[in-house]
Amino acid sequence: MEDHSLLSRRTILRRSAAIPAASIALGTAAHAQEAAGMPPAIPESMKTPGGPFLNPPYGLPSAFEKAVVRVLPAGNNPFPTGSRTPLQSLHGIITPNGLFFERHHSGVPTINPDQHRLMVHGLVERPRVLSMSDLVRFPSVSKVHFLECSGNSSSQYPGLAGKTAQEIHGLLSCVEWTGVKLSTILAEVGVDKKAKWILAEGADAAAMTRSIPMDLAMREGILAYAQNGEKLRPEQGYPLRLLLPGIEGNMSIKWLRRLKIGEKPFYTREETSKYTDLQPDGSSFEFTFIMDVKSVILAPSGGQKIAKGFHEITGVAWTGYGRIKAVDISVDGGRTWRQATLQEPVLSKALTRFRFPWQWDGSPTIIQSRAIDEAGNVQPIRKKLVERRGANHIYHYNAIQSWKVSESGEVSNVHA
Amino acid sequence: MEDHSLLSRRTILRRSAAIPAASIALGTAAHAQEAAGMPPAIPESMKTPGGPFLNPPYGLPSAFEKAVVRVLPAGNNPFPTGSRTPLQSLHGIITPNGLFFERHHSGVPTINPDQHRLMVHGLVERPRVLSMSDLVRFPSVSKVHFLECSGNSSSQYPGLAGKTAQEIHGLLSCVEWTGVKLSTILAEVGVDKKAKWILAEGADAAAMTRSIPMDLAMREGILAYAQNGEKLRPEQGYPLRLLLPGIEGNMSIKWLRRLKIGEKPFYTREETSKYTDLQPDGSSFEFTFIMDVKSVILAPSGGQKIAKGFHEITGVAWTGYGRIKAVDISVDGGRTWRQATLQEPVLSKALTRFRFPWQWDGSPTIIQSRAIDEAGNVQPIRKKLVERRGANHIYHYNAIQSWKVSESGEVSNVHA
Repeated sequence: MEDHSLLSRRTILRRSAAIPAASIALGTAAHAQEAAGMPPAIPESMKTPGGPFLNPPYGLPSAFEKAVVRVLPAGNNPFPTGSRTPLQSLHGIITPNGLFFERHHSGVPTINPDQHRLMVHGLVERPRVLSMSDLVRFPSVSKVHFLECSGNSSSQYPGLAGKTAQEIHGLLSCVEWTGVKLSTILAEVGVDKKAKWILAEGADAAAMTRSIPMDLAMREGILAYAQNGEKLRPEQGYPLRLLLPGIEGNMSIKWLRRLKIGEKPFYTREETSKYTDLQPDGSSFEFTFIMDVKSVILAPSGGQKIAKGFHEITGVAWTGYGRIKAVDISVDGGRTWRQATLQEPVLSKALTRFRFPWQWDGSPTIIQSRAIDEAGNVQPIRKKLVERRGANHIYHYNAIQSWKVSESGEVSNVHA
Repeated sequence: MEDHSLLSRRTILRRSAAIPAASIALGTAAHAQEAAGMPPAIPESMKTPGGPFLNPPYGLPSAFEKAVVRVLPAGNNPFPTGSRTPLQSLHGIITPNGLFFERHHSGVPTINPDQHRLMVHGLVERPRVLSMSDLVRFPSVSKVHFLECSGNSSSQYPGLAGKTAQEIHGLLSCVEWTGVKLSTILAEVGVDKKAKWILAEGADAAAMTRSIPMDLAMREGILAYAQNGEKLRPEQGYPLRLLLPGIEGNMSIKWLRRLKIGEKPFYTREETSKYTDLQPDGSSFEFTFIMDVKSVILAPSGGQKIAKGFHEITGVAWTGYGRIKAVDISVDGGRTWRQATLQEPVLSKALTRFRFPWQWDGSPTIIQSRAIDEAGNVQPIRKKLVERRGANHIYHYNAIQSWKVSESGEVSNVHA
């Protein structure tokens, strides 16, 4: 018999040169061998055949993962505005489609793809009404991009609402999108040289409608029909949505039915009564499109409890300005910072997974991540952000998230 | 009113310099405007609020996509060996977890992750029994890699069985895996210098067991606990599997419970009675691990019907030797070849999406793709592969797939 008591010793973990040596204290499994049916015992799963194929034909997560779902915000709001991705339970950069956050303005419509049409009209030479089978014949692209609601994390402007990464920052997901470049369709219809803006309209009961500058649309806009390989999910715009990488989520119009080309912004309801940014002096910025550089540590994070010893601090960073250049980590409330390792490949306008080895000595502390993007933007501390924008601001919150680790190992949301 | 009749004209599609000009004939939507409720008519989906949030909390595909599921092979086999991914319905390179192919030897076990243990023993200094909560504390990596059953496409050695890409090549999927490097855990236990092989054992009723060379395990092996962001699916090894990138799928042992370090191969049932490669002279190659360079056109592909005019030929290529370097396309049965565009980023040992513009003139023809990898391997024609290996061969079929396009536009599987 091997000496399993070794398991409970503190042992040295050999690390690559780039990461300092760290020791891991392993304890929980040392005496659980018998119960777990390890050799010489045989677990129940080896004694009888398991379940069949196609159970079901479209597979689902394990029943043991039933707590990993999207949730509405806490409270009894009769008109919730979004469900949130369980960021703290995710790994890597891809969000599985079943956990992609939801944000819609009048429910999720049921649309028969055979009946759906996209109309492209206005200042164009050849107006078009395209069916889905027309659209998918055009050359396509596949790109991994994050999508974030401009109101994500907004509860942190005035106060401290929200405990977990999901509750605070969960209006954020990242998938591989496939679709036709907007520029391909605009070339097809022949855009008038006078045209400077595009109106995009959804086929939902809110007729969700936004104005998009032509240069932004031409640069990277995608008429997306698939996410993570399969067709769009209903709550993500099935069968067709606009996808504007790096831009606030509401402009990536879902259930897209109409693009109207014009000379000026259309000033729809969604860009006058909403989605403008109130400033401390009472004025509002309109058309604030690009999502700022941001990051959040997901492990350890709010609502979790950790033990003394080695932990790999990990989380995600993202920016609407391109690639993440670096993520700094502080494990002492912002006094000192050291660079995390970024998981390659680092993709433009996609989540970037970062990792940082940490030996927690059991003292209360605050851990933070600070993202820097290739355009030179640096994620600000909350105090500076609120000074600049005021505590009544709603959109584009991107301040550094501080997680307090108490002496008992409990992790909670704080403003530091 | 705009002149919607323009839609039915043949119009010039402007393309980038790298892709030749092509024209798209759009017809189906021209007169369907009224029926589809386009402006001035309003579709039903805009007249009443849609469905609520969290319907369900873990989201599902649209009901209109119910045919896009995994399937068993055709026929009445009472002991099916695998369900297949609907490749021809997928886009990009990520396979959604619900459509990941299944291959298991005695059913899918139900394993409580709190009870699961991984034992690492044999020629090591510090044997270990690790719980899942132990394991996830080690530093992790996230990588996109394909997984292919070594028996994928084997029906094409002797004959022409299978009509669709799913039926013929569907034991193939690609996800973002997250887990602990095998080398990290091997460093933790301290491997004896004499050790050259690792036995990996699954906790299923087949006790699926394989021998793995130490250098292969150390180089890229991952103890994977997540796929596409969330925890592994039950049929993919929940809560823990081995993942050996680029290596035949059966060696990436699922429901992993034991790693035994030794000096020699263990010659288990699965590497004597199965997973050896029978040669024309009656001898067998053992330990043929690496999956060869391969590709398949998915659109147009078997079972589909196309119309005259523009099509973007698209599909996926992959190799166990690293990155795909190029994919050539022939639209004349292999007489002439031209390079397809590869979707960036091209990742090592991952699917690579390729695209190629094609104007079909309505003449019967055969379309083919030929992948070349960075190691210089070139996908062979079937005749050469069968000459080399014999028609009784089972594993590692990687010949060029030929799709015949008939005069009526029907696409079917042929050997050319």
